[in-house]
Amino acid sequence: MTKEIRLNTFALAAPSHLSMGLWRHPRDRSLQYNQLSYWTDLARISEQGKFDAVFLADGISLYDVYKGSPDTAIRHAVQFPRLDPILLVSAMAHVTKHVGFGITSSVSYEPPYLFARRMSTLDHVTDGRVGWNIVTSFGDSGTKALNGQAARAHDDRYDVADEYMSLVYQYWEGSWEDDAVLRDKEQGIFADPARIHTVNHEGEFFRSEGIHICEPSPQRTPLLFQAGTSARGKAFAARHAECVSISAPSKKVVKDAVDDLRQRAVQAGRPADSIKVFLSLTAIPAATDTLAQAKFRDYLQYASTEGAAALFSRWAGIDLSKYSLDDPIEYVESNHMQSVINNYTRADPDRVWTFREILERVAIGGGSASLLVGSPATIADQMQAWVDETGIDGFNLGYAVAHESFQDFVDLVVPELQRRGVYKRDYAPGTLREKLYGEGLARLPASHPAAQARHGHQPAVSALPVA
Amino acid sequence: MTKEIRLNTFALAAPSHLSMGLWRHPRDRSLQYNQLSYWTDLARISEQGKFDAVFLADGISLYDVYKGSPDTAIRHAVQFPRLDPILLVSAMAHVTKHVGFGITSSVSYEPPYLFARRMSTLDHVTDGRVGWNIVTSFGDSGTKALNGQAARAHDDRYDVADEYMSLVYQYWEGSWEDDAVLRDKEQGIFADPARIHTVNHEGEFFRSEGIHICEPSPQRTPLLFQAGTSARGKAFAARHAECVSISAPSKKVVKDAVDDLRQRAVQAGRPADSIKVFLSLTAIPAATDTLAQAKFRDYLQYASTEGAAALFSRWAGIDLSKYSLDDPIEYVESNHMQSVINNYTRADPDRVWTFREILERVAIGGGSASLLVGSPATIADQMQAWVDETGIDGFNLGYAVAHESFQDFVDLVVPELQRRGVYKRDYAPGTLREKLYGEGLARLPASHPAAQARHGHQPAVSALPVA
Repeated sequence: MTKEIRLNTFALAAPSHLSMGLWRHPRDRSLQYNQLSYWTDLARISEQGKFDAVFLADGISLYDVYKGSPDTAIRHAVQFPRLDPILLVSAMAHVTKHVGFGITSSVSYEPPYLFARRMSTLDHVTDGRVGWNIVTSFGDSGTKALNGQAARAHDDRYDVADEYMSLVYQYWEGSWEDDAVLRDKEQGIFADPARIHTVNHEGEFFRSEGIHICEPSPQRTPLLFQAGTSARGKAFAARHAECVSISAPSKKVVKDAVDDLRQRAVQAGRPADSIKVFLSLTAIPAATDTLAQAKFRDYLQYASTEGAAALFSRWAGIDLSKYSLDDPIEYVESNHMQSVINNYTRADPDRVWTFREILERVAIGGGSASLLVGSPATIADQMQAWVDETGIDGFNLGYAVAHESFQDFVDLVVPELQRRGVYKRDYAPGTLREKLYGEGLARLPASHPAAQARHGHQPAVSALPVA
Repeated sequence: MTKEIRLNTFALAAPSHLSMGLWRHPRDRSLQYNQLSYWTDLARISEQGKFDAVFLADGISLYDVYKGSPDTAIRHAVQFPRLDPILLVSAMAHVTKHVGFGITSSVSYEPPYLFARRMSTLDHVTDGRVGWNIVTSFGDSGTKALNGQAARAHDDRYDVADEYMSLVYQYWEGSWEDDAVLRDKEQGIFADPARIHTVNHEGEFFRSEGIHICEPSPQRTPLLFQAGTSARGKAFAARHAECVSISAPSKKVVKDAVDDLRQRAVQAGRPADSIKVFLSLTAIPAATDTLAQAKFRDYLQYASTEGAAALFSRWAGIDLSKYSLDDPIEYVESNHMQSVINNYTRADPDRVWTFREILERVAIGGGSASLLVGSPATIADQMQAWVDETGIDGFNLGYAVAHESFQDFVDLVVPELQRRGVYKRDYAPGTLREKLYGEGLARLPASHPAAQARHGHQPAVSALPVA
């Protein structure tokens, strides 16, 4: 029996996300990305499909590795231009009641105190429907725009991230006790200052002294998403993340990653199932397999190989314009690229790929192997197989054509999954965290490191050492 | 003939703004400040009243001067806790079509590149309805929370602000030419990289290198609000501001400030009427003067002198708990306080004030002399007198009881002003800037310093020197 499948909408506040060139499709709405109705419609469709969250990727770096400039990305709208997704949340929350919002924000960019306030603000006004996708930023163009400097080295970024987490946990979990807020009109007491505590943090990367300027929100700490793939990134995820996003084109690679992550969570003193894993998925469903293939072929006419090259060059850290697209990729030396390329080579060790073959797969859905094309039954079969064989909990559903891909999925695939008993017919009550972990669990459990920031926290004698 | 009167809603994302203790009033909704419907209702009421903008104050410092701690502010909810107002805008924009949003953000807190992106995002999704209230931050508690350090000296803050403006103008006005965006589905060209320019800024306080990550929004630079009162602050306002907020309890003080500001604008090479001046106003209207006075007396029962002392102590920079409230204030020495106190003493040079008398006026409406209580005709008479005798353009309308004060004003005073022909019956078309300055004027004029950041800008030979 397949476990219950969870779904998030996966998007970016730009005219493209993972499918390059599709903004030219006659039915595509991507060019409306800078209109509010584009986002409120997406939120409504997501809630119609009973998705857990609208997950919005973000970053301020440009795709400027290909040909050594951002020109291709500018011309082909490769994740460019990009709005700030956090500002779209309140409108999307206003038109929905249940769906959550996973907002990407980099620990390299946002001052922790201001960011803690932002997340608390959103957690209040959405009634506890907010998640945070924690990223460390790897693009030089982003940090140069921010402060004129190049990005930090990789492992150093995770040291910054660990300290950042420690600091925002203190504001979210430690500054206000649960009974600090009285809101007592008779006595004229809004809150009891004796139960509000000053955070004093003097670390390697951050200094901060103050009380949290927001009263406790429903979840206090937002639901924590992460997507680390390096060893250091996985260690970070095992310690902090509640939801982890992965993208890989083979069940073997995914299963290994899921097993590794759950094992690391246990080593960090957390239950193995305290982390939900979501795989990137792009689905192109239609009433029958034949119609779905026809739809896919129609989409493919608009796919941009040039755009895919700009996307992939930055992911791989190598300028593809310097290679012949038909060369076998085994001849290319790049440690950075290997981790991306490995997603392909490990799936089928005997096959030799060319860049052109990879780019064809990247152009729609960003190169995830979980590009599913078919009837609702075909897609549901494959989704169940992914869940059964790899141990993932669900999918971050990307789009080929906005918002058609989402609407098709909601209209066609969701009912099929519900018929099979592997997808909820109604939202669970409560906050985003409760929808994933159960009623009454609006706040992080005692096994999570954030709990150590709580006022009066006593470290358990029997606690496992935390990495 | 009175000129057309402009109005903004004046609020703070907290359980109180300028009227202390009123959150305890049975009809007051302030405690709902952390619910989204509180803000969407406020936006709807503001648009019903054809106000130009919902102006949201902000800051992250606490009112911790009184008794040397934030305890009184915490207990009495003195502008505390405080949500991030920028996150409320998209929901308010979704439920309205015309009203603008004036968002306060400090140049001491937000990295310029990220902030430029935030404002561009909002200007896009609101169709050009966004304004920015530029503040430099004076509270040590805010900067300590941000980076563990005390606030900068006053004049130094304005040097930072000038450089910050220069940098964000480059992103908003200079990075993309007007014809850079093609959105050409046939040719497959989203934008022309040759018409997008890299900003290279290396200044005293900021370094930044990049292209603006947002395509040009309807206004490019948001409508610029400011509220400088010092000589350095006024020079800054004269150079940059389009709307200036002032708060003072006498027509003489206000008229002098307005005249001085317009003169400074001319000296900075801008037309005298290129700056609109808004005076803080709290109005308590009812069908008759008698009923209005009864409503005022009812409100006064809930006013908090202790809360007002916390508010005023920080404004004046002096701990009022160290003085007897009935001492005449001429005996107190404090340069910082003088500018606040002067608002009272200059209004009536022969009168000697006590702190208690001042606090009674501060408790409702924050101590603005333009606290108007009466019938619609009484209030309209006084508003017209303020405009006629001082040269202001309108009012930032605060509240005593949320949202009753706004709804009363919209239901009672707005129709009276309309009958007198001094208030619009319909919104003008276009962006926020066009609503204030006229159709076709969505962007800053050539006389504004932002225009110097435009690509291909040629300084006019005849231009006046800019301070």
